[in-house]
Amino acid sequence: MELPKGFLLSTAEAAIKKPGRKDMALIYSEADAAVAGVFTTNKIKGAPVKLDIERIRSGRGRAIIANSGNANVCTGPQGMMDASEMAALCAGGLGISEELVYIASTGVIGSPLPMDRMRPAIKTLAANIGKSNLEDCARGIMTTDTFPKFGTKKIRLSGKEVRLAGVAKGSGMIHPNMATMLSFIMTDAAIDKNTLKKLLKASAEKSFNRVTVDGDTSTSDTLLIMANGLAKNVPLKEGTADYEKFRSALDSVTFELARMIARDGEGATKLIQVVVKGAKSEKDALKGAFAIAHSPLVKTAIYGNDSNWGRIMAAIGYAGIDVDESRVDIFLEKVKLVKKGRPNGKDEEANLVLRNRSEVTLTVNLNLGSSAERVLTCDLSENYVKINAEYRT
Amino acid sequence: MELPKGFLLSTAEAAIKKPGRKDMALIYSEADAAVAGVFTTNKIKGAPVKLDIERIRSGRGRAIIANSGNANVCTGPQGMMDASEMAALCAGGLGISEELVYIASTGVIGSPLPMDRMRPAIKTLAANIGKSNLEDCARGIMTTDTFPKFGTKKIRLSGKEVRLAGVAKGSGMIHPNMATMLSFIMTDAAIDKNTLKKLLKASAEKSFNRVTVDGDTSTSDTLLIMANGLAKNVPLKEGTADYEKFRSALDSVTFELARMIARDGEGATKLIQVVVKGAKSEKDALKGAFAIAHSPLVKTAIYGNDSNWGRIMAAIGYAGIDVDESRVDIFLEKVKLVKKGRPNGKDEEANLVLRNRSEVTLTVNLNLGSSAERVLTCDLSENYVKINAEYRT
Repeated sequence: MELPKGFLLSTAEAAIKKPGRKDMALIYSEADAAVAGVFTTNKIKGAPVKLDIERIRSGRGRAIIANSGNANVCTGPQGMMDASEMAALCAGGLGISEELVYIASTGVIGSPLPMDRMRPAIKTLAANIGKSNLEDCARGIMTTDTFPKFGTKKIRLSGKEVRLAGVAKGSGMIHPNMATMLSFIMTDAAIDKNTLKKLLKASAEKSFNRVTVDGDTSTSDTLLIMANGLAKNVPLKEGTADYEKFRSALDSVTFELARMIARDGEGATKLIQVVVKGAKSEKDALKGAFAIAHSPLVKTAIYGNDSNWGRIMAAIGYAGIDVDESRVDIFLEKVKLVKKGRPNGKDEEANLVLRNRSEVTLTVNLNLGSSAERVLTCDLSENYVKINAEYRT
Repeated sequence: MELPKGFLLSTAEAAIKKPGRKDMALIYSEADAAVAGVFTTNKIKGAPVKLDIERIRSGRGRAIIANSGNANVCTGPQGMMDASEMAALCAGGLGISEELVYIASTGVIGSPLPMDRMRPAIKTLAANIGKSNLEDCARGIMTTDTFPKFGTKKIRLSGKEVRLAGVAKGSGMIHPNMATMLSFIMTDAAIDKNTLKKLLKASAEKSFNRVTVDGDTSTSDTLLIMANGLAKNVPLKEGTADYEKFRSALDSVTFELARMIARDGEGATKLIQVVVKGAKSEKDALKGAFAIAHSPLVKTAIYGNDSNWGRIMAAIGYAGIDVDESRVDIFLEKVKLVKKGRPNGKDEEANLVLRNRSEVTLTVNLNLGSSAERVLTCDLSENYVKINAEYRT
């Protein structure tokens, strides 16, 4: 798995929450890169998010340093100082300006960062730059994730090979407008910062913002992209075929990462794709899909391999969208559970499908219009409760 | 526990879902009563709800017949016929007009009612009228409830003793604008139907509509009150001291029932009272309180006896309300966890409180204004998942 040109990675152990695993990661671009970001909409934001939002106005960057185990949120002026120091130490180690370093922290809220343990680890990160691969980097930012999330894509633009690579972490507090979701995308494409920003925002909308695990929106969500231009393609311009090709590649990387996040929702045993179509508007389709995807009753039923479509019906009914009960069709995969608002006698068949699959698609056709939307979520198991009841202890 | 004058109760077993328990209940008033109701806001409504909404226009009634085990929802024209037949059979047995009978069903969605088993049970209900007490009646409408929910209140109005009695059932799919929540209130107060309707609506707003278990709003929520005037008080008029006395008695009955519903949320081990105060507006206070009460992360933390206030902070942050991080205070009972947005070093003390209590109050002071609201919910345990994953099997 080749990284985009000019990108180097490293990881280190700072024992932030506990020892025994890599809990810091560094992404470094040898050349100055255009940078764009999407951040949490939560009004209470972590210090790293505040710092990044300031810095990203320049649209330029060279490095992203991230840690797991501590989110540096609700930590007051000390938190802001620690965030700045993280970036400054990293910049010092790499020999670059600290304004070009972005940071991301995830984990417990309200505890100051253990800077005494992090300072030497940041030096190690800089010293070891290039010694880690994409998977190591993905592991370095994991919290309750059960597997590392990363992906790559290669395309040709104006005769040049252009690569994209991304890492992400979930896996609880996942909700549209993101949630403790970190994702960093690297590309060697040549593209100006404004075009990059526009593409990233649209891409996040259709990927990370279509994922929900538990409806909680975190204080730390951060999605960053760095494009260093080392592929030497003709700089991308909107409306060209190359632009579309790049957009499609970026969308496939972000969607694949988002899918992994849903797949790895805390305690999840199944990935659920919820499709609402035949809606009067896209807004209705999306609200309907999220109502279903948020319903703990739907999610526990899927966990129990029970095609309890009554709960899906109820969710559509309270979604606040236009719905006519007598027109609703509901499918689990290709099995039609509900026909014109009435049971279709296929529950057992659907239960069998549920028992045999780890990924399922629920489709609701409202038969009222032509708009459709898709949302990703996961089932809700006893393990979600266990993980979150015991998280700090 | 004396019932209000002129009210008689009975219960019967129709083995609707399974045999071995009373699953039908009848409330009968010997005198014509004023009736008011509040029903689910879900756009998909059960047949019983549709029928009640039609009938309640008259503001009059004599009986309420209810069953558990089957909600008679998404059952099409057959469902409407079954609902009518339930009421008609009941009216026949009691010798009253069928227009004066209200019905309520709760349980599985999408299966036709087992009318063959229910017809004889309805006859039994009518024949045995007066043979059951309030607790029996509360048991007859239980689904996954673990204890029967009922309460009474006695007051004096214009020299007459006036009684109120109520039953309710929870316990999942509980959400504002109600949720599979049934509650029936009886009173012998003399009060006209319009005044009764106004009082009931306001009372529901501060009780049942302040309870959330899982954020799901059911298709069957029904709150009904019957006032038969047999106490012979001077008919209640707004603005009088008696009116206020009655209002306060009604509010205490509905609040107590709502509290029991939250206490008995599926799988709950703790009742959680969430108070948001110091808000700029009541709307903000309520949105903030519901954001906290809906958060699976907050609810699992409480279940784990972990005063994880970071999750409370995050919930306030995404609630979509005015919040200034540096002003927020958070309390668990009297323990101040957060002071001006920063940790107050009392987490262990709070955890001890959590370990020793089955009811806790979380208070957030936004320190931005003078509005406050209160919401009731419960913690989220593995048992919630278990109950809902296995509900139909």
